[in-house]
Amino acid sequence: MPPAHPFDDDKLKEECGIFGVVGVSDAANFVALGLHALQHRGQEAGGIVTHDAEAGFNSARRFGYVRDNFTSQSVMETLPGPLAIGHVRYSTAGSKGQTAIRDVQPFFGEFSMGGAAIAHNGNITNANALRRELIERGSIFQSSSDSECIIHLMARSMGRSIPDRMEEALRKVEGAFSVVAMTRTKLIGVRDPLGVRPLVLGKLGDGWVLSSETCALDIIGAEFIREIEAGEMVVINDEGVQSHFPFRRAKSRFCIFEHVYFSRPDSILGGRSVYESRRQIGVELAKEAPVDADLVCPVPDSGTPAAIGFSQESGIPFALGITRNQYMGRTFIEPTEQIRNMGVRLKLNVNRGLIRGKRVILVDDSVVRGTTSRKIKEMILDAGAAEVHFRIASPPTAWPCFYGVDTPQREKLLAATMSEEEMRAHLEVDSLKFISLDGLYRAVGQANGRDADSPQYCDACFSGDYPVRPVDMLEQGFEMKAAE
Amino acid sequence: MPPAHPFDDDKLKEECGIFGVVGVSDAANFVALGLHALQHRGQEAGGIVTHDAEAGFNSARRFGYVRDNFTSQSVMETLPGPLAIGHVRYSTAGSKGQTAIRDVQPFFGEFSMGGAAIAHNGNITNANALRRELIERGSIFQSSSDSECIIHLMARSMGRSIPDRMEEALRKVEGAFSVVAMTRTKLIGVRDPLGVRPLVLGKLGDGWVLSSETCALDIIGAEFIREIEAGEMVVINDEGVQSHFPFRRAKSRFCIFEHVYFSRPDSILGGRSVYESRRQIGVELAKEAPVDADLVCPVPDSGTPAAIGFSQESGIPFALGITRNQYMGRTFIEPTEQIRNMGVRLKLNVNRGLIRGKRVILVDDSVVRGTTSRKIKEMILDAGAAEVHFRIASPPTAWPCFYGVDTPQREKLLAATMSEEEMRAHLEVDSLKFISLDGLYRAVGQANGRDADSPQYCDACFSGDYPVRPVDMLEQGFEMKAAE
Amino acid sequence: MPPAHPFDDDKLKEECGIFGVVGVSDAANFVALGLHALQHRGQEAGGIVTHDAEAGFNSARRFGYVRDNFTSQSVMETLPGPLAIGHVRYSTAGSKGQTAIRDVQPFFGEFSMGGAAIAHNGNITNANALRRELIERGSIFQSSSDSECIIHLMARSMGRSIPDRMEEALRKVEGAFSVVAMTRTKLIGVRDPLGVRPLVLGKLGDGWVLSSETCALDIIGAEFIREIEAGEMVVINDEGVQSHFPFRRAKSRFCIFEHVYFSRPDSILGGRSVYESRRQIGVELAKEAPVDADLVCPVPDSGTPAAIGFSQESGIPFALGITRNQYMGRTFIEPTEQIRNMGVRLKLNVNRGLIRGKRVILVDDSVVRGTTSRKIKEMILDAGAAEVHFRIASPPTAWPCFYGVDTPQREKLLAATMSEEEMRAHLEVDSLKFISLDGLYRAVGQANGRDADSPQYCDACFSGDYPVRPVDMLEQGFEMKAAE
Amino acid sequence: MPPAHPFDDDKLKEECGIFGVVGVSDAANFVALGLHALQHRGQEAGGIVTHDAEAGFNSARRFGYVRDNFTSQSVMETLPGPLAIGHVRYSTAGSKGQTAIRDVQPFFGEFSMGGAAIAHNGNITNANALRRELIERGSIFQSSSDSECIIHLMARSMGRSIPDRMEEALRKVEGAFSVVAMTRTKLIGVRDPLGVRPLVLGKLGDGWVLSSETCALDIIGAEFIREIEAGEMVVINDEGVQSHFPFRRAKSRFCIFEHVYFSRPDSILGGRSVYESRRQIGVELAKEAPVDADLVCPVPDSGTPAAIGFSQESGIPFALGITRNQYMGRTFIEPTEQIRNMGVRLKLNVNRGLIRGKRVILVDDSVVRGTTSRKIKEMILDAGAAEVHFRIASPPTAWPCFYGVDTPQREKLLAATMSEEEMRAHLEVDSLKFISLDGLYRAVGQANGRDADSPQYCDACFSGDYPVRPVDMLEQGFEMKAAE
Repeated sequence: MPPAHPFDDDKLKEECGIFGVVGVSDAANFVALGLHALQHRGQEAGGIVTHDAEAGFNSARRFGYVRDNFTSQSVMETLPGPLAIGHVRYSTAGSKGQTAIRDVQPFFGEFSMGGAAIAHNGNITNANALRRELIERGSIFQSSSDSECIIHLMARSMGRSIPDRMEEALRKVEGAFSVVAMTRTKLIGVRDPLGVRPLVLGKLGDGWVLSSETCALDIIGAEFIREIEAGEMVVINDEGVQSHFPFRRAKSRFCIFEHVYFSRPDSILGGRSVYESRRQIGVELAKEAPVDADLVCPVPDSGTPAAIGFSQESGIPFALGITRNQYMGRTFIEPTEQIRNMGVRLKLNVNRGLIRGKRVILVDDSVVRGTTSRKIKEMILDAGAAEVHFRIASPPTAWPCFYGVDTPQREKLLAATMSEEEMRAHLEVDSLKFISLDGLYRAVGQANGRDADSPQYCDACFSGDYPVRPVDMLEQGFEMKAAE
Repeated sequence: MPPAHPFDDDKLKEECGIFGVVGVSDAANFVALGLHALQHRGQEAGGIVTHDAEAGFNSARRFGYVRDNFTSQSVMETLPGPLAIGHVRYSTAGSKGQTAIRDVQPFFGEFSMGGAAIAHNGNITNANALRRELIERGSIFQSSSDSECIIHLMARSMGRSIPDRMEEALRKVEGAFSVVAMTRTKLIGVRDPLGVRPLVLGKLGDGWVLSSETCALDIIGAEFIREIEAGEMVVINDEGVQSHFPFRRAKSRFCIFEHVYFSRPDSILGGRSVYESRRQIGVELAKEAPVDADLVCPVPDSGTPAAIGFSQESGIPFALGITRNQYMGRTFIEPTEQIRNMGVRLKLNVNRGLIRGKRVILVDDSVVRGTTSRKIKEMILDAGAAEVHFRIASPPTAWPCFYGVDTPQREKLLAATMSEEEMRAHLEVDSLKFISLDGLYRAVGQANGRDADSPQYCDACFSGDYPVRPVDMLEQGFEMKAAE
Repeated sequence: MPPAHPFDDDKLKEECGIFGVVGVSDAANFVALGLHALQHRGQEAGGIVTHDAEAGFNSARRFGYVRDNFTSQSVMETLPGPLAIGHVRYSTAGSKGQTAIRDVQPFFGEFSMGGAAIAHNGNITNANALRRELIERGSIFQSSSDSECIIHLMARSMGRSIPDRMEEALRKVEGAFSVVAMTRTKLIGVRDPLGVRPLVLGKLGDGWVLSSETCALDIIGAEFIREIEAGEMVVINDEGVQSHFPFRRAKSRFCIFEHVYFSRPDSILGGRSVYESRRQIGVELAKEAPVDADLVCPVPDSGTPAAIGFSQESGIPFALGITRNQYMGRTFIEPTEQIRNMGVRLKLNVNRGLIRGKRVILVDDSVVRGTTSRKIKEMILDAGAAEVHFRIASPPTAWPCFYGVDTPQREKLLAATMSEEEMRAHLEVDSLKFISLDGLYRAVGQANGRDADSPQYCDACFSGDYPVRPVDMLEQGFEMKAAE
Repeated sequence: MPPAHPFDDDKLKEECGIFGVVGVSDAANFVALGLHALQHRGQEAGGIVTHDAEAGFNSARRFGYVRDNFTSQSVMETLPGPLAIGHVRYSTAGSKGQTAIRDVQPFFGEFSMGGAAIAHNGNITNANALRRELIERGSIFQSSSDSECIIHLMARSMGRSIPDRMEEALRKVEGAFSVVAMTRTKLIGVRDPLGVRPLVLGKLGDGWVLSSETCALDIIGAEFIREIEAGEMVVINDEGVQSHFPFRRAKSRFCIFEHVYFSRPDSILGGRSVYESRRQIGVELAKEAPVDADLVCPVPDSGTPAAIGFSQESGIPFALGITRNQYMGRTFIEPTEQIRNMGVRLKLNVNRGLIRGKRVILVDDSVVRGTTSRKIKEMILDAGAAEVHFRIASPPTAWPCFYGVDTPQREKLLAATMSEEEMRAHLEVDSLKFISLDGLYRAVGQANGRDADSPQYCDACFSGDYPVRPVDMLEQGFEMKAAE
């Protein structure tokens, strides 16, 4: 069950997925499949760039799903060659109009020694400052994307090779960035010094693959080799994989929310099955916050693994109390006789026969604004539930993410302004419990919980502890957590 | 979790869903929502007809999903009025080209006393014979649909009112048919004498609703009143609901496969939660065909309730061992380096981290051709499973359905030519067990199982016992089961 | 120069063009070309029906131009076979929404002896009455088209062959109708007893062609054989052309407006070049209504041949004083600073350098509402013309046409309520002259002008003398000219 | 009659039209209208950029006609503000696939002092060299357009204002370029030092307009003020029009082919009506190359004014012997029974009734490859003409244009390899005559013909005398005419 969720507008959203292939015929076909498997990381748009000895660089960038844009013969035959990278991009709630196709990655630049294309997942936290400087010196930006800074920094570098120029450029950017890039002959992958966003290496016949997640290796039958390390740059060509470490070494701070929600449950992160981690969160949650009830129901679909774990630990039967409409839509015309919670009804329906008279534990992955939780609670009560208990598979989301995730402004986050009990009262449910930060760390394999002095993960959205200063945001007035 | 399934081409397919509303403003908006909730019963096309005192009859019929066709202001404002009926139509595998928009229901006819529109779910088993006769007498058919016979029979009737004409027409047709129809002022619903296909009555404010399933009442907040009875015709106008019984009375034979697969799990059929019936099938199956194993995994999504029941009865942990791609596509270009089982990979991925080394019970709802089951088994083994055991939540599907369900020809049905053991060997799995017909009857509430002398349900697809002679099919050479 | 005109909304409009081919491979490809050449007779929609021994009957009907709908391999390969008919349909001003695709011809009916398709150009004047009767007897109409009556009359006929049934049906309809029809083996053409609308026969290799105009024979390289006679029915198959005369003989009354405007100038009507007839109208007009001026300018494009004739007869130089925009559009957003006559400017521009200070004769084909004439006059004066003289290549259009031409209601026709001098004053021009009815008859070859006792043409739009009673219109309140 | 021509693939093609407006509300609506009037200068794509104090810069760039892309409320309301420029772009024969939307002008750049947009008509002859240098220094090109050089040169300039930067940039480029540009407050227009391509200034209420041709002033009711001079740069804001001369002064060499074919006949060039110049070409041609014949027929539509002039001078009647299909298409499927010259028949038809037995003079504007002339001659002979005489309204086109016109390679030009008599023999016509270069100069107002020492126009396509060295082309191997 993939992590897509019927209430995208009340969830944190991963901003991107990246994928690259070198050393196989018609690499773009593999990239299309890989991006399809990574579609949950970005649904607004996608792009593929290829290189072929005869046809040179080619690209196609489109709004919409991979399955709709990169499946026809007519498109795919414009993308020949043994080397390709691709990107899927997130959909911002309601602001589609503001994204131009020119903002869709990969970006391409022609340098004096040849062209290069680049795509990234993450966010450059000093992009505004870099952009100002580059414009001052005569660079012309074509997009509003932070990623375009990298290509301009490369263009101005005096480095002799494209990998050299990329190293030089990347040392100037700050933030979280997993990158795939390509020259005419090389596939390049980079993770930022803290390794905030994922990137893995796979083997496909005689060729190589880079992917945000392992689930995209599976779809093309590629073998998972290893994760790219934090701060590592791999340069791959016919002769194999060369590893570089261009940055100052730092301790890894991988995004813990990838375990909670972003990654697909059938991916493997840090050697652990994501599904298992999520089930384990449910187990921990059942230990931390038990409650007497008749049924454990997931909020579909992302709450399911934790609900299974909760059921198994607590012995309370697991049941699908809420049915998701497979053919979701957002835009039906509201009939004149008001339908209560119409938005929710388009996507979900409560299994009335099952729920009536029952004490129900609802397991959800997170609470962002809380708007959806309220509506689901109402539907469950309308269907005759006796009690409603929320159990949340992550700690309270109290801080925005600046590392490549689309988060509401801090004041919109329910947990930024309310205590757990205030949230319970606000949602009008019988109980509401979040897993503790230590519990979450345990569930993802840190037996002793979070190391407060040197946390093993980036958990800024829960803790306010930002491992990279969000320079541009501070300039725009964001206030960091006061030192304690 | 709705019954939609990633392998539509290896499933029996419901051919239609129907919905009608009278007595509320802008009835078409409610019909659009109702059809959206019934989309699992037909994805190829949909249509809505409305009547308004000023604007008269209007209709819109389109290929594609309800959410894409009946959500824009520009379309919906062409469908004014307090009375509307709608229809969603199945998608036949690969033959889209042969369906013309003129085959999309509802059908409309102008009679001397005014117009009427009609839509049905089911199949008229003597349609070919009726059609020949009507053409002989000068009727001109505009579609290839069996339903059009009804409207021509009505046109030729000497009845004074449209309901009278409809009664007369329906007495001439044989088969399974749940009908919604409308005149300028009346909403009409009919179920065939055996009540093979479902139809329910709901109340919406001062108005009334007819729907294939209760889940579509929920989406508009309508109250479920009762099922239309087998052989009943209801005529609804401002003054309320009138009930007629135009046919010779017969014992009801509702389609048992609606419980197994067709209906949504959050619908209520015959007073029972469909989800609960399916979970109970899993319980029965665990009793009938236990096996020692590590995990019980559903084949997503339709096998899930039975898998939960199997797990609960057997004590073997339930797990989501197969992840379904939320953004399914069918048409990626196969890369030159062959990807094994690419078709399946586009839709499903095995959770390798979870499955490796495990003895896995896979619970699926049915086996039709068996092609998909084979591929899933291969994926599970590729991922390192130690053993694979299939448990099927229905008896062997050995006979085609002629009552409104799209079934392969008999010789394509795996169970038509193989014993259970032969099927197991063919699928190359460690064990394969189907629920017994009696077990299925018990799970849907018949404590004593199937009454062989007078079966409570239509189970022709399992038993070959056809409650209505398939006249047209016999003419085309179909051979019924020899009397025993 | 084709007769299309930038001011379609102020012109009478031909309602249809028809074309049929038998006896050549892939007949539909020829029909597509023929319809393309007849596109000026109808721009809203087009349809083609074919028959092939293996594939049976096939059809495609689409809104829009032939060049956009019937040129792709994917469409045309669905239309195989050696026998095909096609139809292009007029565009009504502003009422596109009311035409459904089901109103697009050819119409098809399945009879007990096989199918037939039919398309016609013209109008059935007793269609409403026939329709009522047919519905009374149980026929179900699928379109709002008058043509559908014919197919229902055929369905109810007891005739043994389709041509027999068509004869029987056509004897019941009144009005103007040129028909092409087809069975599985025969191409059929019919003209109504008065031969109001055109239809010609051509030879193409071993096959045969029927077409509204000769210009469509030219495009496929077919040889023009002869016109179908008034009241003639031709039935064409492998063995050749059989001629029948099913109606009571009557004197031909061909539409004189086909000479003036409807037909393409490169067609041949009644043995005369349409271009030559129009040039001759200009010659007659120059004789009847001379005026001293500097330039003779056509209103593009339909006034051009008459303007050439006027120039040649008068000796006043011909000049293109008005330029037509080749890329006409109707829907630009009017800027806030009002542009005078913006609608006209989108389509035409006055050649200011040429017109300034000149006395200009503008030659147009007809005046319907007069709205466009006013605007053109204003543009010419704005450009500095010294005098503006209108010369009109047809008599005043004072009566609506009920024989297949889209005309405004009588009260909208400028000439229905004003004398020539009143019109001149209304248009505020220096002079305005229409050709006389006798002058027009002379120009099209009747040396003695109109035979008042037995007119050689249908000229109802000028004279109010309707050769066939407009039964349906009289029922709706239309008042015919009082007998004099 | 606009200069568009049914045989675009056998014509020289203007590459662009430009238009700009400042000082009126909703300037984009005027620009859309202006571009519509300039559509003959480029049909492939169009773009508009606007600036509004609140909304900043906005742009829309689309493939296809202005009437299809810039007429909807939804598009136009994204283009607010009192300042706008626009561009229409040519369609290259068959290479549509290679033009990306990023090649569609206007181009936009963000500089440290604010943004600017620029569009041009013409060609930069040293673009390749400039591009190489700019890339070397770190500029990233987004398009393959020569125009993008200008914006990068501006970005790198140290000038304090955008007009200063533009002056500096334009001094580095060579070739033919008429430019419209805009900053947040200024509309800028420039013509290259020789003034090869046209640009005119108009007044619209309190605002100002720049346009390629005067016909686009007419459509919005703007008053024609004057032509921008060769080498002039105008900077227009609220305070009026400032004139600069940034280049070294040179004698003007306006493109003489604008008079022959590119410009619309209702435009005014150099104080002369284009229509009149063309008619005068016909007069000169009749004097230079008289022939005894029955009819003078234009090849529609571009040959018409010259044909009128030829008829008037010679006394031979003018006639429309060839009818153009108003609904041109290029892609009908060729029926299996070969149709001779099908490509031509889709667009033209000979008026057989008129031509039969006649000696016909065909007047065309130019002969490029000669392929079309051959086909037209065949059609005329097929229709029974007794003799065919070609008269061409321009001298032999023997050299490619490098100043913004799409010309075939030199070896494809008929006149590059054949004498006039050889061409006549090749076309198999009774006579073929081109106007002399001096005759052409006389027709456009140079009473003494061409000044060989210092030609008044750019006539490189006829004479091989290139006023600006085609640097990039020479690098690619083009050989200029040997000095005589």
